Amino acid sequence: METAGSRIAALYAGDLGFAQIDKLRAERTGYPEVVYCAGKTIEQALNIITKMREDGAPVFATRANEELAEKLAVRFRETEYDALGRTLSIGEFCPEEKRTGLVVIATAGTSDLCAATEAARTAEFFGSRIKLIADIGVAGIHRLFSRLEDIRAARVVVACAGMEGALAGVLAGLVAVPVIALPTSVGYGASFGGVSALLGMLTSCAPGISVVNIDNGFCAGYQANLINQAGKIGE
Amino acid sequence: METAGSRIAALYAGDLGFAQIDKLRAERTGYPEVVYCAGKTIEQALNIITKMREDGAPVFATRANEELAEKLAVRFRETEYDALGRTLSIGEFCPEEKRTGLVVIATAGTSDLCAATEAARTAEFFGSRIKLIADIGVAGIHRLFSRLEDIRAARVVVACAGMEGALAGVLAGLVAVPVIALPTSVGYGASFGGVSALLGMLTSCAPGISVVNIDNGFCAGYQANLINQAGKIGE
Amino acid sequence: METAGSRIAALYAGDLGFAQIDKLRAERTGYPEVVYCAGKTIEQALNIITKMREDGAPVFATRANEELAEKLAVRFRETEYDALGRTLSIGEFCPEEKRTGLVVIATAGTSDLCAATEAARTAEFFGSRIKLIADIGVAGIHRLFSRLEDIRAARVVVACAGMEGALAGVLAGLVAVPVIALPTSVGYGASFGGVSALLGMLTSCAPGISVVNIDNGFCAGYQANLINQAGKIGE
Amino acid sequence: METAGSRIAALYAGDLGFAQIDKLRAERTGYPEVVYCAGKTIEQALNIITKMREDGAPVFATRANEELAEKLAVRFRETEYDALGRTLSIGEFCPEEKRTGLVVIATAGTSDLCAATEAARTAEFFGSRIKLIADIGVAGIHRLFSRLEDIRAARVVVACAGMEGALAGVLAGLVAVPVIALPTSVGYGASFGGVSALLGMLTSCAPGISVVNIDNGFCAGYQANLINQAGKIGE
Amino acid sequence: METAGSRIAALYAGDLGFAQIDKLRAERTGYPEVVYCAGKTIEQALNIITKMREDGAPVFATRANEELAEKLAVRFRETEYDALGRTLSIGEFCPEEKRTGLVVIATAGTSDLCAATEAARTAEFFGSRIKLIADIGVAGIHRLFSRLEDIRAARVVVACAGMEGALAGVLAGLVAVPVIALPTSVGYGASFGGVSALLGMLTSCAPGISVVNIDNGFCAGYQANLINQAGKIGE
Amino acid sequence: METAGSRIAALYAGDLGFAQIDKLRAERTGYPEVVYCAGKTIEQALNIITKMREDGAPVFATRANEELAEKLAVRFRETEYDALGRTLSIGEFCPEEKRTGLVVIATAGTSDLCAATEAARTAEFFGSRIKLIADIGVAGIHRLFSRLEDIRAARVVVACAGMEGALAGVLAGLVAVPVIALPTSVGYGASFGGVSALLGMLTSCAPGISVVNIDNGFCAGYQANLINQAGKIGE
Amino acid sequence: METAGSRIAALYAGDLGFAQIDKLRAERTGYPEVVYCAGKTIEQALNIITKMREDGAPVFATRANEELAEKLAVRFRETEYDALGRTLSIGEFCPEEKRTGLVVIATAGTSDLCAATEAARTAEFFGSRIKLIADIGVAGIHRLFSRLEDIRAARVVVACAGMEGALAGVLAGLVAVPVIALPTSVGYGASFGGVSALLGMLTSCAPGISVVNIDNGFCAGYQANLINQAGKIGE
Amino acid sequence: METAGSRIAALYAGDLGFAQIDKLRAERTGYPEVVYCAGKTIEQALNIITKMREDGAPVFATRANEELAEKLAVRFRETEYDALGRTLSIGEFCPEEKRTGLVVIATAGTSDLCAATEAARTAEFFGSRIKLIADIGVAGIHRLFSRLEDIRAARVVVACAGMEGALAGVLAGLVAVPVIALPTSVGYGASFGGVSALLGMLTSCAPGISVVNIDNGFCAGYQANLINQAGKIGE
Repeated sequence: METAGSRIAALYAGDLGFAQIDKLRAERTGYPEVVYCAGKTIEQALNIITKMREDGAPVFATRANEELAEKLAVRFRETEYDALGRTLSIGEFCPEEKRTGLVVIATAGTSDLCAATEAARTAEFFGSRIKLIADIGVAGIHRLFSRLEDIRAARVVVACAGMEGALAGVLAGLVAVPVIALPTSVGYGASFGGVSALLGMLTSCAPGISVVNIDNGFCAGYQANLINQAGKIGE
Repeated sequence: METAGSRIAALYAGDLGFAQIDKLRAERTGYPEVVYCAGKTIEQALNIITKMREDGAPVFATRANEELAEKLAVRFRETEYDALGRTLSIGEFCPEEKRTGLVVIATAGTSDLCAATEAARTAEFFGSRIKLIADIGVAGIHRLFSRLEDIRAARVVVACAGMEGALAGVLAGLVAVPVIALPTSVGYGASFGGVSALLGMLTSCAPGISVVNIDNGFCAGYQANLINQAGKIGE
Repeated sequence: METAGSRIAALYAGDLGFAQIDKLRAERTGYPEVVYCAGKTIEQALNIITKMREDGAPVFATRANEELAEKLAVRFRETEYDALGRTLSIGEFCPEEKRTGLVVIATAGTSDLCAATEAARTAEFFGSRIKLIADIGVAGIHRLFSRLEDIRAARVVVACAGMEGALAGVLAGLVAVPVIALPTSVGYGASFGGVSALLGMLTSCAPGISVVNIDNGFCAGYQANLINQAGKIGE
Repeated sequence: METAGSRIAALYAGDLGFAQIDKLRAERTGYPEVVYCAGKTIEQALNIITKMREDGAPVFATRANEELAEKLAVRFRETEYDALGRTLSIGEFCPEEKRTGLVVIATAGTSDLCAATEAARTAEFFGSRIKLIADIGVAGIHRLFSRLEDIRAARVVVACAGMEGALAGVLAGLVAVPVIALPTSVGYGASFGGVSALLGMLTSCAPGISVVNIDNGFCAGYQANLINQAGKIGE
Repeated sequence: METAGSRIAALYAGDLGFAQIDKLRAERTGYPEVVYCAGKTIEQALNIITKMREDGAPVFATRANEELAEKLAVRFRETEYDALGRTLSIGEFCPEEKRTGLVVIATAGTSDLCAATEAARTAEFFGSRIKLIADIGVAGIHRLFSRLEDIRAARVVVACAGMEGALAGVLAGLVAVPVIALPTSVGYGASFGGVSALLGMLTSCAPGISVVNIDNGFCAGYQANLINQAGKIGE
Repeated sequence: METAGSRIAALYAGDLGFAQIDKLRAERTGYPEVVYCAGKTIEQALNIITKMREDGAPVFATRANEELAEKLAVRFRETEYDALGRTLSIGEFCPEEKRTGLVVIATAGTSDLCAATEAARTAEFFGSRIKLIADIGVAGIHRLFSRLEDIRAARVVVACAGMEGALAGVLAGLVAVPVIALPTSVGYGASFGGVSALLGMLTSCAPGISVVNIDNGFCAGYQANLINQAGKIGE
Repeated sequence: METAGSRIAALYAGDLGFAQIDKLRAERTGYPEVVYCAGKTIEQALNIITKMREDGAPVFATRANEELAEKLAVRFRETEYDALGRTLSIGEFCPEEKRTGLVVIATAGTSDLCAATEAARTAEFFGSRIKLIADIGVAGIHRLFSRLEDIRAARVVVACAGMEGALAGVLAGLVAVPVIALPTSVGYGASFGGVSALLGMLTSCAPGISVVNIDNGFCAGYQANLINQAGKIGE
Repeated sequence: METAGSRIAALYAGDLGFAQIDKLRAERTGYPEVVYCAGKTIEQALNIITKMREDGAPVFATRANEELAEKLAVRFRETEYDALGRTLSIGEFCPEEKRTGLVVIATAGTSDLCAATEAARTAEFFGSRIKLIADIGVAGIHRLFSRLEDIRAARVVVACAGMEGALAGVLAGLVAVPVIALPTSVGYGASFGGVSALLGMLTSCAPGISVVNIDNGFCAGYQANLINQAGKIGE
């Protein structure tokens, strides 16, 4: 098997020694590889991104800090950096005018905006229109109701909340589309860095929710976009 | 200190060898001792309750099984047993006509009724009027709104829910009185026997909630009654 | 607010005392309410389902045992029961010929079939075509590759696995559609009743995964169907 | 439902883009919204508080740092900041002469004073008289007895303790009023940042205790005041 | 090293194939080996105990069930079995008249008596006089004070409690001798099978406490006896 | 890729619908597939094993119960069942006379013998000679020293222990070969079903230890045999 | 009760507002109160210690930092500070020549010396002779055997270890006196800040061990001294 | 026993007061002692290493920082320091030309290189040839297949991964040699500092895996080398 398998696979990877760029990922999954910058040195991230960009691919990176963004901006004028969401893009995968389908990203509080913004930038980059609605947590549930028409316009809803994470369950009972629950590490004490929100979202009695890792705005935005695009694929 | 302390204390306790009945508890706290039957043999529970009843005290017992209830009913005609809440009373601490102040006990689902009933029977025994409203969990939030007027008539609300426990937070944002959150072990998987509900209730962003142990309907009902009666004490 | 809110809400609910049937759920979310039978007595479940069926609604119930199924079959000839998935339906929400879009449900092992079957029955009931592919866990990864063409025909993939739950991540790297990860309690020791699978799925480095509660095949199937239908809604 | 609901709700919220001020909260619950400053930037907190204050509302904020307090003091002379409890108020909700009913806040040790002070400032702001009694933990139980008369004058007791949190249970056995247990993160090793105190308080065998999140002095003080005021509401 | 070490060690062990009896344990530590029956078949336990008894050693066994006790009683008339503590002895290590030094074993509730009795039988077997004082938990603290003179007569105190386990800390603040804390699995919900009691005892702010495993009455009684005898050894 | 990959893979698998037999596993890894019976119905296990045996493969199954063993013995005379280790074999992968290299399996106590026996039967089946040494836990360390010569004759040592699991670390400091640590669920209370043993083995300060899942005797025995055979492979 | 109780208790406490000095603790328990400096400001600690010293009491403080020590040294010449154990004393409770009975404090590694030194200073202050034996962990068990004669001279042994904490169990099998197990936070990964050592010590199969909180050298030393002195008290 | 045991043991240890160098470790286990620098002061580490080196032993140290490396380089010219793996060696235990048998160390991502490098340096020092293959995680499984021939050349494989840790299970299904799974703390949220990877590796359904502590590259490399050398020992 290795003969057949490895011959094919050799085509896929761009080997940098410390990293293997997954060049054919777009072919396999429809989307290019994304660079996760946490745990990489600035130099490693610079090298990976430069190599990808030189190969002509549009680049999207998460957990990028300002130092990296500044260094890349020198090399590539089209670098765009979102400090709140810590995302970075160079070039476009899907130009704004071609983005279709609305993803609504709702947050329970102001402090959830970091994760929510990462989700928003990700969904946009991969081709969705997005609308971010902040601070409509269930403690003042009328705030949520006042935005319900906006929310119901979405094909997918991302519910972003820390503490008890109840926003996801309440929203899922009010909309007809999938809800992606994005727990955040907002809170203290028995919030356990987002675990309580995660558990609340996993165990919600409302159907129509699936959950991503704590603070993983990228994954929420990516999945929301996949769902948003689902109508066009596989048939 | 032991001389003074122990002389006084000697008055308080009714020593059965394996149990010390706290006879003067009513004097100290305003309420008689309650018998927790779990972990006691039928014989131990029978002896304790018989002794208390023979001393003329009204008896309230929790986690009582049917066998115990039947044996007590033979001895004491006035025995009342609630199989759903597993509570048992012999005699009245506060006759129905003297009960004042409404405690509303709301449940997220039908399966939460065991714990909710334990809370209801407890609050009643100690002097509250109670109203139990079942199955108004947040996944279908209009069910909750349809009962809001009933709920707002309460001096204290007990919010009883398993799974993600979001009912407590939503209710606390809609009422002007204290909410006692009663997590239940309803659910499976990441519900962890009620831990997710407990954590969700503890970390709710809505103020005005305090929480009792998982499935501890007795404690919720007892505290709700204390709060309900708070206006009459201490001034 | 309660005046307006409660007047409207009064229309929604079918109050059985111990349960509130969410009659207008289909209007709000596009789908009828589902009966979760665990934690309900046979009598409660019978009453709820009978009431719903008498109102003309198609019924879908989960965690139903055989005793309930037999009693319902006496009343309603069209009762269908799946003993492996513990699901039960009476009447059709979406006839087989109208089901569109393929949901593939893949399991890592034979023991994951309970949860996977619950997912399959759910997705079918609500309108998806489904294909269940069993026992293609990553320990023998060629088994997965041999079914890749089948899997890539799906609009949504449900990856159902216990133990380390790695199937979800490997699949998500090979398909272009959303993967719903369904952890199961299969395994022992450090599997902790499905927690290890759950954590592995949440932390997978492959994008395109979102996760439901341990053994919650219903939620996985429901969400998969929502995604499958996403192309038709909200525009 | 959204038509009716959202029209009403639109009245409630003051939309700042990143935050929705809950202006009608006082109407719904009897108390104005409180600003939780953790996780917000200084600018966000400044904007929210300034907007609320300009609308004429008395402001109460928790987890406020000195930098925020200083900036607000420049804008609003009546700013009061408690560095130990990290609370901040601008204007009065309930003037000192109108505060009624005593809340006693007892701490097990000196290190518990941060959380206890947050509770004290909160209860005061919303209308309670308070008395803070420090360092009467159960390791030297005579210290507790020496203050028992003071404690018994309260309508509600807040028991604030880290480590094993036993103060709540001992107090609840000695008073006739509700005890709000406030676990703190004081301690190390198996204290697990307050988890041991939290668990001890939740599982106390003394009835009459309900518990708030670790270090959540605000919630303890808020609930204590609600209980203190319970006699005046709802009848 | 194995030559020297193994030659000596060969003397120590009585090899039964599936078990190695530690015959020289008394020589090394002053006390004979104890048989822990849980996880052993009746046959294994019978064989081990019979072999030990035939070698003339006094036998003490824990977690023994009635079936084993009855079979041993047939072989050895001097078999004594305590059904509550599940301990069994054959022959005496220290006759009653030679027992010196008082160990007090105090329990918080009636349900803690199983573990407490195991501790009592163990301490007695190895040479201590014991006094068991039941049901003096801190929720009714006067019960504890009424027995303080009895408790202060001890050389060592075993504090046996489930739920929040506060008895150990309160006692340690009132006596001048070591307290061995014995957490029990009494309780439910957030008691987590004794974990809350264990944590409370480990983190108590009172010095003079050390803790044994949950429900490990044997270990508590053994350690209490060692401490009780400490005055006679090692000088 | 699927074309090449799936064509090859098609050769590998024996599809039973509910299970895919990994027929070419021996080719890939040198060893045939093993049947894990837990979570499979008797019928499923029977079908899988019968299919494998009919294809001529030697069968090894774990977690097999007696009912399965009896049914298989009827079909295949050469069925061998070990009730203690719950393993079952039909046919030989490596006849006894060809087994080389000694694996020593040491247990801390008698109760660890279930897991240890599973390890022993596994290592034997795949080609190792084994020696099982029971009940040499560190509480009586001379018992371990008395067997040190036997232990040092091994190429690999499996250290099987519950409770604190210290046997692995002590052994690893005394031998020159790899130690496979096999934690067991023996113990109660803070043993947490083997978690304490697992953690102790993972964090041992002695180098030369690697760990398998709790009670996973199969995995320990399989790995021990792989290491034992390592000298013959890959060069 | 408060009348009698509080009158007596009033004698006990030295009220500093933020702290209650337990002046009669020596009378109740035989030992003066100890100051735990963590979580107190330098000023609070200074005030408490100065007040105690001015009342003539010998002072012992734990978790003291150098700044506090220097400030106290200015006021009280007899201040002694141990930077490794972070203990501080002013004046003597028990002069060196009156210390009797040997406490051996053994550590598994060099990194355990902080906790071990805290234990040593504590036991000394309260009247024990101590011997500290470092770095004799079980990975090289001959190091332990080479010090066995020293260890067996003790009346009590403190076994101080991080990681898997096996030292306690091995020692307890080799000595005839109580072992106090002191888990430390030494280690990483699955050591979980000392939890693995704590669990290993609690679940050790060797009798004669009791355990204190992670890194709680004070508690270990205090208990060891109590045990050491046990021969003199209570008869 | 202590006489014989301690006489022999006295030969083994080099006593530095705060540390006991295990000089005869090489004799007992075939390999010299390794210095673990974390938790030791620079001075302690310097003294231990200098003493060992002066005795002529080759030194290998882990978790060494640059300051230590620089100070040692002044004393010993042959000091070699690997900043990524934080390992340090002085002198050779096994010269490069004598190293035999290939250990492949594969990582899931770039961020896993710290732990992987520690493993590589360790295995090399003790006598193995090594090959490090980075960034072949299962999210892009073709990258793994493209290196399969390289991987299959190994006698032992170390699979190094954070997040869900699935690399170990997939590799074990593809190779015929033991896999040592090395979980890393790479990841966030529900990765819990490496716990999810650890659990995933422990519960993998692929046989032939054993696991070391999180980030413990040393232990993985040491065990891999032991296995690699297994063919030469014990027969």
